[in-house]
Amino acid sequence: MGSTVLSEMATEIVVPVCAVIGIIFSLIQWFLVSRVKITSERNASGSNNKNGYSENLIEEEEGLNDHSVVSKCADIQNAISEGATSFLFAEYKYVGVFMIAFALLIFLFLGSVEGFSTKSQPCTYDSHTMCKPALATAIFSTVSFLLGAFTSVLSGFLGMKIATYANARTTLEARKGVGKAFITAFRSGAVMGFLLAANGLLVLYIAINLFKLYYGDDWEGLFESITGYGLGGSSMALFGRVGGGIYTKAADVGADLVGKVERNIPEDDPRNPAVIADNVGDNVGDIAGMGSDLFGSYAESSCAALVVASISSFGIHHEFTAMLYPLLISSVGILVCLITTLFATDLFEIKVVKDIEPALKKQLIISTVLMTLGIAIVTWLGVPSSFTIYNFGTQKVVKNWQLFLCVAVGLWAGLIIGFVTEYYTSNAYSPVQDVADSCRTGAATNVIFGLALGYKSVIIPIFAIAVSIFVSFSFAAMYGIAVAALGMLSTIATGLAIDAYGPISDNAGGIAEMAGMSHHIRERTDALDAAGNTTAAIGKGFAIGSAALVSLALFGAFVSRAGISTVDVLTPKVFIGLIVGAMLPYWFSAMTMKSVGSAALKMVEEVRRQFNTIPGLMEGHAKPDYATCVKISTDASIKEMIPPGALVMLTPLIVGIFFGIETLSGVLAGSLVSGVQIAISASNTGGAWDNAKKYIEAGASEHAISLGPKGSEPHKAAVIGDTVGDPLKDTSGPSLNILIKLMAVESLVLGSQFVYRGLVEFYFDEVNDDDDKLGYVKR
Amino acid sequence: MGSTVLSEMATEIVVPVCAVIGIIFSLIQWFLVSRVKITSERNASGSNNKNGYSENLIEEEEGLNDHSVVSKCADIQNAISEGATSFLFAEYKYVGVFMIAFALLIFLFLGSVEGFSTKSQPCTYDSHTMCKPALATAIFSTVSFLLGAFTSVLSGFLGMKIATYANARTTLEARKGVGKAFITAFRSGAVMGFLLAANGLLVLYIAINLFKLYYGDDWEGLFESITGYGLGGSSMALFGRVGGGIYTKAADVGADLVGKVERNIPEDDPRNPAVIADNVGDNVGDIAGMGSDLFGSYAESSCAALVVASISSFGIHHEFTAMLYPLLISSVGILVCLITTLFATDLFEIKVVKDIEPALKKQLIISTVLMTLGIAIVTWLGVPSSFTIYNFGTQKVVKNWQLFLCVAVGLWAGLIIGFVTEYYTSNAYSPVQDVADSCRTGAATNVIFGLALGYKSVIIPIFAIAVSIFVSFSFAAMYGIAVAALGMLSTIATGLAIDAYGPISDNAGGIAEMAGMSHHIRERTDALDAAGNTTAAIGKGFAIGSAALVSLALFGAFVSRAGISTVDVLTPKVFIGLIVGAMLPYWFSAMTMKSVGSAALKMVEEVRRQFNTIPGLMEGHAKPDYATCVKISTDASIKEMIPPGALVMLTPLIVGIFFGIETLSGVLAGSLVSGVQIAISASNTGGAWDNAKKYIEAGASEHAISLGPKGSEPHKAAVIGDTVGDPLKDTSGPSLNILIKLMAVESLVLGSQFVYRGLVEFYFDEVNDDDDKLGYVKR
Repeated sequence: MGSTVLSEMATEIVVPVCAVIGIIFSLIQWFLVSRVKITSERNASGSNNKNGYSENLIEEEEGLNDHSVVSKCADIQNAISEGATSFLFAEYKYVGVFMIAFALLIFLFLGSVEGFSTKSQPCTYDSHTMCKPALATAIFSTVSFLLGAFTSVLSGFLGMKIATYANARTTLEARKGVGKAFITAFRSGAVMGFLLAANGLLVLYIAINLFKLYYGDDWEGLFESITGYGLGGSSMALFGRVGGGIYTKAADVGADLVGKVERNIPEDDPRNPAVIADNVGDNVGDIAGMGSDLFGSYAESSCAALVVASISSFGIHHEFTAMLYPLLISSVGILVCLITTLFATDLFEIKVVKDIEPALKKQLIISTVLMTLGIAIVTWLGVPSSFTIYNFGTQKVVKNWQLFLCVAVGLWAGLIIGFVTEYYTSNAYSPVQDVADSCRTGAATNVIFGLALGYKSVIIPIFAIAVSIFVSFSFAAMYGIAVAALGMLSTIATGLAIDAYGPISDNAGGIAEMAGMSHHIRERTDALDAAGNTTAAIGKGFAIGSAALVSLALFGAFVSRAGISTVDVLTPKVFIGLIVGAMLPYWFSAMTMKSVGSAALKMVEEVRRQFNTIPGLMEGHAKPDYATCVKISTDASIKEMIPPGALVMLTPLIVGIFFGIETLSGVLAGSLVSGVQIAISASNTGGAWDNAKKYIEAGASEHAISLGPKGSEPHKAAVIGDTVGDPLKDTSGPSLNILIKLMAVESLVLGSQFVYRGLVEFYFDEVNDDDDKLGYVKR
Repeated sequence: MGSTVLSEMATEIVVPVCAVIGIIFSLIQWFLVSRVKITSERNASGSNNKNGYSENLIEEEEGLNDHSVVSKCADIQNAISEGATSFLFAEYKYVGVFMIAFALLIFLFLGSVEGFSTKSQPCTYDSHTMCKPALATAIFSTVSFLLGAFTSVLSGFLGMKIATYANARTTLEARKGVGKAFITAFRSGAVMGFLLAANGLLVLYIAINLFKLYYGDDWEGLFESITGYGLGGSSMALFGRVGGGIYTKAADVGADLVGKVERNIPEDDPRNPAVIADNVGDNVGDIAGMGSDLFGSYAESSCAALVVASISSFGIHHEFTAMLYPLLISSVGILVCLITTLFATDLFEIKVVKDIEPALKKQLIISTVLMTLGIAIVTWLGVPSSFTIYNFGTQKVVKNWQLFLCVAVGLWAGLIIGFVTEYYTSNAYSPVQDVADSCRTGAATNVIFGLALGYKSVIIPIFAIAVSIFVSFSFAAMYGIAVAALGMLSTIATGLAIDAYGPISDNAGGIAEMAGMSHHIRERTDALDAAGNTTAAIGKGFAIGSAALVSLALFGAFVSRAGISTVDVLTPKVFIGLIVGAMLPYWFSAMTMKSVGSAALKMVEEVRRQFNTIPGLMEGHAKPDYATCVKISTDASIKEMIPPGALVMLTPLIVGIFFGIETLSGVLAGSLVSGVQIAISASNTGGAWDNAKKYIEAGASEHAISLGPKGSEPHKAAVIGDTVGDPLKDTSGPSLNILIKLMAVESLVLGSQFVYRGLVEFYFDEVNDDDDKLGYVKR
């Protein structure tokens, strides 16, 4: 054992400084984006005028500019932004009520452990010292829960704001060239990425320091309370991912079914009444939803690492720097991502369409390589050369190089998942081209090949996750898993930047179409968007990979706290937990897919109604009623979110209370190992279908031309695949992350209230009295 | 403890007598089917003439008869039968080579344990007595492996023969009424069901008695060798299910894509060159494949029960009757199914189309109720009032009423799975009607709703399986699970009868179409077929439910034999096994679906080629070249079967050797809990799509009429769903049963050769020397 190179004081400075650097960097990016002007006569109150030199810049662009187009873009952007804001506020109303109710539940559940006593009590893991009362844990857990929820809301909301701020700007920049448009979209993504990473880190850091004022030396209680932060983040993500996912796909599928299939008008045609809802959906689902999902993972993996560490040698010897190792990793991650971003925005330049994907891929590689170095430095400075970790009732000695490997293996597993996802969803490679080719024989073969592709795409990611788990679990037990998850998430700022870039480009294309801009602009935005589909799939790959590691870490932390040291598959209660747990992702997916389907049908009816009743709509003389479609999506998503939400929130409670901790452990493990597969395959299948369609539309190769053009039979088959893929890749697939994480973190936070034996088991054992463990005759 | 009511002698009589009764009953059914005459001028050498009184019967039918139609039916039946026989023989050539190679491997693997020593050795579980040498186990395991494989081949082949013998007869009977046609199809199914159940039982019984001549009192060795029977059955099922599944769907999808979609000719139109291959496929996939799959389950669950029992008080005290309890259950099952069959064929009569489904449902209920009584009697007569069972290193006391509950819970879980499957796949209920309704908005919503339906349909079956596992596991550990599986399979004769009824009706419809029979006949066969789709789905539900229980029992037997008493999820090696195991069904499904897709594309090309190059084919003047299509399906299925087969066969070997027993246990548990979900959802989704299409085509309600008729846009969307569902429900879904069972039984048979620690783990521990269990510091 030994102490750390970095002093406590240095840690106290490094972490907040890095967070503040991240926030400043994101503000700079925002400023750079805001220099692209969209001023329209009708929209003179836009935020751009505040800078005071807008006239000047419009002059500069004059050569390319057309005032009516710019003004149209601004109008559309406004409509999208308003729709997104109104959805988020409608959502927040429900979220607010839910959060307050859930906060109350947490308080009552945890406070009642010792009957709301305010007396100190012996610590769980060290009965010689006194810990703060259970009531304190209840209060501080509730506070950190609310903090986590609030930070998540803030991150999602700001991300949505910048995305809707940037989409029209990307469209306008596309007139100047694909490189300019790319940089605008990418910078906007970076704003979101850095804000989220830095905010998450800063709030957590401040919370720890404030809680420490009360808890003092009781680190066990301190970091136990902090886990509420993860639960808050994840609960919010439930609404963001599930609600946002239903919103976006109800609008998208509804718009496509009537527009593309029945009326034969192009995607994003302004005559389509659901077109604004569709574009709003990209922002609330893929931006705000994705942001809150990844924030949840980040918060949870940090909390899992902290709570496991608090009962290990760091915690016992009060080594603050080593204790805050998870936060140090995130701090360095912000710096690394900052440098990585400069490569995309300043050091290289995109000149032609085919540079886009390699540029985004380079971001992944550069950030991973730099971060490996960063982790090495942080581990050397922030961790003693050797320390012990709590491992299900035993202590395990860990060396600092082993801990480095744990973090690094998570980081590199993320890169591998990213690459595999790219291979299976980008139309530059054979898998998507094969799927496109299968459209020759119609939609059925397209669907069969697409499903097979998704199934196949899980193989390597699962091996990557398995290797990370094996290495980090073997070296440092659950602490290893938690820091491996953090390793995967350490480049979250870059990951989110390239991920958010996708929906922004998608919106940019939509705005170009709606504003009636030239065919060339649309081609550029389509190319940006095709790369965006791939990066979105990569982002989803990261999200699910990290969710798998995070929920395993949370599961481990739950089991540790529950005080059981084995979860034996060879007992009936664990095995039924396992098989029922493996079923839950199917139940959950059935709900979310059906929700999208029903909401889309409602949307279809409304869109048809408008086409039939508004005279001149089809001819472009009359304006459709966008607001009603926005309202349908909003109402449907909020209503449909409840059953899947209830399934996730109630399962741990019901299983824990009625069947006990061991069955609950089985459920958590089962849903984890099963859910991760469905999530990966669903998101890759959907991404592949989308890009197979784009491959045919773009007609960039001889093969692609032979399948096209738009409107050909293979293209129609590809559109069907794309529509099927929409709820898979943007609703049911990513929502599964929430399922597996949220059940685990809820079990961790509320676990102390579950009895070892559930009520049912207790009853069963009573009836079957000579059959419990005592009845066995040892040979 | 106590002895059994039934004496050893009585058991020795009851079991073979019941088996022989089953065989006789199936021969009677065959005879009754054969009384339906199909004699044609061109086919005078048909088997019917042998009876000598064919003239007489044709006279009798005269009023309804039309010689040219009958002769056409006979021709078509011949073509189908020849195609099926030629495929099976082609398959058996490869199977033969594989079986001999695998038998050799088993012999070498098991024989080498003690260096092919012929000396007796101390028993594993009782070191005071001497057991037969490992070489004997190797030899007898190999023999029973070959016996199992042979019995499976025989069952599948005979089933296929009777099915192809009955299909044209069903068509002809359909002219007389739906009731007559139903009885013919049902009786033929019963032939298959009873032959398979009785054969399986008889061969196993004889094998045990013959092996006993050598083994004498060494029951541990005796029943260890018998497990080879299960492995043989399951290995054969790999070929039957996977190869047959690829065959049938390559032909079906290929035929539909060109015929229905491109050429707009009806299903089963004789002008379609792939039509014979399609009908052959129903027989080799759904009959022979399903038969070998269920035979495999039956053989494996019997073997798992026997091997677990052999090291328990039955085995130690050499209570033969109690030991043969699993065979007694199957014996009573044959009698119960016999009575149940009479209800369908003699006691009730089907008069109208809508009686069909209730009649089949009644079969399930009657057999279950009677069997519950049967189990009670067998348990009372054949089991001591109390006995002990080996339970992972400990002994567990079991009372006879507890054992009764174990079997009964499996039986009733099977019924529940059957009902739920019917609810989700029959077009009499709202789920399928909703899917049909979603076709209004096109194929995409149809696919989305269908997938959601499949996901949802797993919920109740999984709970049913979970309850069976919990009850039987709690009462009688792994023995309980094995007998629960046997309980579910105890009505296998009835299950197979109603299952085989499906493809026979499907073929009958095809023959009616091809022979150019009237519209009314086709309507009747379509109604039979729609019920057949549901019963096929029910059969698949049983197959997967029993596969889940069986593989858990085999898994338990493997773990018992491997001598480990816990499989702890909280160790890295088990957890990675779990997550990788949960991935295997996806990998496997990706392979099988892609195989169907590729083979179907080849078929499409050939069918297109024939339509383009054979003059007059489309007009019906020229005959297509059926044989080439049959050959394409045959070649494709045999070639494409290899990669998934290798995945299943090699995984336990590789994992066992490199990662050790604990990781292998994780893999088995993971693939079980994940595979069962995919299998259920795939087979129900496919069944629902098929019946949604039939619902629109039949137009039996106002709602259905509003969606139809054939050729309408909703109907086209329904056809796409049906085509996507084909590989899901008939290839990838049911093949997963084989994946989970075969890996488990292979581990059980070869398990004694796997080291506790795999090579990789050993290496890892060497490198990481202070991190193994010894390095832990107990707090």
